[in-house]
Amino acid sequence: MSLLVFGSTALDSIITPKKKNPRLLGGSGSHAAVAASFFAAPKLIGVVGTDFPRKYISLLERHKVNLKGLKVRDGKTFHWAGEYEVNMNNRRTLDTVLGVIENFSPTLPVAYTKLPYVLLANIAPKVQRQVLDQMKRPKFIVADTMDLWINIAREELLALFKKIDGLIINDSEAEQLTEISNPITAALAIIDMGPSFVIVKKGEHGAVLVHQDGIAVVPAFPLDQDGVVDPTGAGDSFAGGFMGHIAASGKLDFETMQEGMAWGTVTASFTLGSFGLDGLVSTTQAELEARMSEFRTIARIC
Amino acid sequence: MSLLVFGSTALDSIITPKKKNPRLLGGSGSHAAVAASFFAAPKLIGVVGTDFPRKYISLLERHKVNLKGLKVRDGKTFHWAGEYEVNMNNRRTLDTVLGVIENFSPTLPVAYTKLPYVLLANIAPKVQRQVLDQMKRPKFIVADTMDLWINIAREELLALFKKIDGLIINDSEAEQLTEISNPITAALAIIDMGPSFVIVKKGEHGAVLVHQDGIAVVPAFPLDQDGVVDPTGAGDSFAGGFMGHIAASGKLDFETMQEGMAWGTVTASFTLGSFGLDGLVSTTQAELEARMSEFRTIARIC
Repeated sequence: MSLLVFGSTALDSIITPKKKNPRLLGGSGSHAAVAASFFAAPKLIGVVGTDFPRKYISLLERHKVNLKGLKVRDGKTFHWAGEYEVNMNNRRTLDTVLGVIENFSPTLPVAYTKLPYVLLANIAPKVQRQVLDQMKRPKFIVADTMDLWINIAREELLALFKKIDGLIINDSEAEQLTEISNPITAALAIIDMGPSFVIVKKGEHGAVLVHQDGIAVVPAFPLDQDGVVDPTGAGDSFAGGFMGHIAASGKLDFETMQEGMAWGTVTASFTLGSFGLDGLVSTTQAELEARMSEFRTIARIC
Repeated sequence: MSLLVFGSTALDSIITPKKKNPRLLGGSGSHAAVAASFFAAPKLIGVVGTDFPRKYISLLERHKVNLKGLKVRDGKTFHWAGEYEVNMNNRRTLDTVLGVIENFSPTLPVAYTKLPYVLLANIAPKVQRQVLDQMKRPKFIVADTMDLWINIAREELLALFKKIDGLIINDSEAEQLTEISNPITAALAIIDMGPSFVIVKKGEHGAVLVHQDGIAVVPAFPLDQDGVVDPTGAGDSFAGGFMGHIAASGKLDFETMQEGMAWGTVTASFTLGSFGLDGLVSTTQAELEARMSEFRTIARIC
């Protein structure tokens, strides 16, 4: 089924202890859309500048990402530069140039306004809301966010919560939002703010779904230290894989969401294994399914 | 099948943000033995002082823990006092009185020397080794340890590693031992030191088994903040549930160990829910099995 993905489309310069990588294709929308493309043909909404390399357009198109909603505007593409510490868990931002994303006010192609599945990947809640306001009664809306918006746009975020079905958020952000460190209790507090369900992402420790029909937990796909090359976009890939599975299945029950978490987890594990989007774009459908099969064995409960 | 459990038998005074609890029955051996008693009839080796309350002897006996190897010596029972922070992840030791455990040199009842399954719960590696040296070719030996022994008895610990089948260790201790933060890579480095397999415990984030036949991951049983009352002994309970399952099954293959991790996880979740051993001793076999069944659903991979 048809899935709308809105988020940032960026150029990322990423420094890890092993390598410097300038101007990779990045952004929450790019990661989520490519991740979702294993399951559904996502329609990406976003904006880039005139400096956006043609090869990245080709790459997204090759991965069945529909770009009719990707605008090119005079100016620079949103650029993020960051550095990871040795343990890969902490990162610091070295530089951010908002460029054309700063005053971007998305306008949806008319055909997109009727899409049933909507993933609002991490971007300012104000523009997430602008996209939502143009949609005609979508069937299922999930949003992601980040610490920055909790800090500087809390009211807009809380207003958005009343319009969405599910929120995907990481554990430190859930605590920041609720002042509750236990992820399940924090998720229940967030459900009281509006969403019907919350998925708390715990990075290398997996994720937990808190839903009115129950709780589901999924561990991360186990990777040794050589398997974790660049965590950038792993959370966006999780969200994309999750929503891709939901959109493809056409079902919205608890079990489908639990399955979606597992698919999101396995999809994200390929993102972690290479820089930027390299891991996802070099992975075949067969490789994804083989790793999912492996994951079922690794995480099997007797 | 018959399981020997060796570890500390202690009185624990535990302060949490909610409550102060003086002189609870504690110790790695007590927790591991009671946890194992859901699966097998464990034989406990340990020592207590003349101050050890009679009611705790009765409690252990009621839970099918064979106490023929529990010595009573003139002096005080090992006493630990500690305080947990609000998030329950960090604790600090307020006081330690070693008492009769300080110069304890365990002597096994002859019948115990032929037991096939041995769990060396956390205690000084020197005395873990003394127990092992009295055993007659046990079929399967697993040891637990802690940061203290890595700091002050590293050589004895490394010598012990060459004698055991499996090591159970938490994530920060695995890093302390190997200087490797990734738990899987750290476990592989520990396997190079002697054990055939390593289980890295990650507290609220579950556990990972690294074994020559593969890797298995298990999430923690999800508990909200009211479900985490006192983490003391949760790791020992995990080890006891794991070994209890192995001893009861009589099998030593990878799948049995993977199942054992799930049983250890569910057993430990009852320890977390009350102070000291209260959670374990008030749990029935039927409640344990019901929670295991629930865990299968919660952690199911499609």
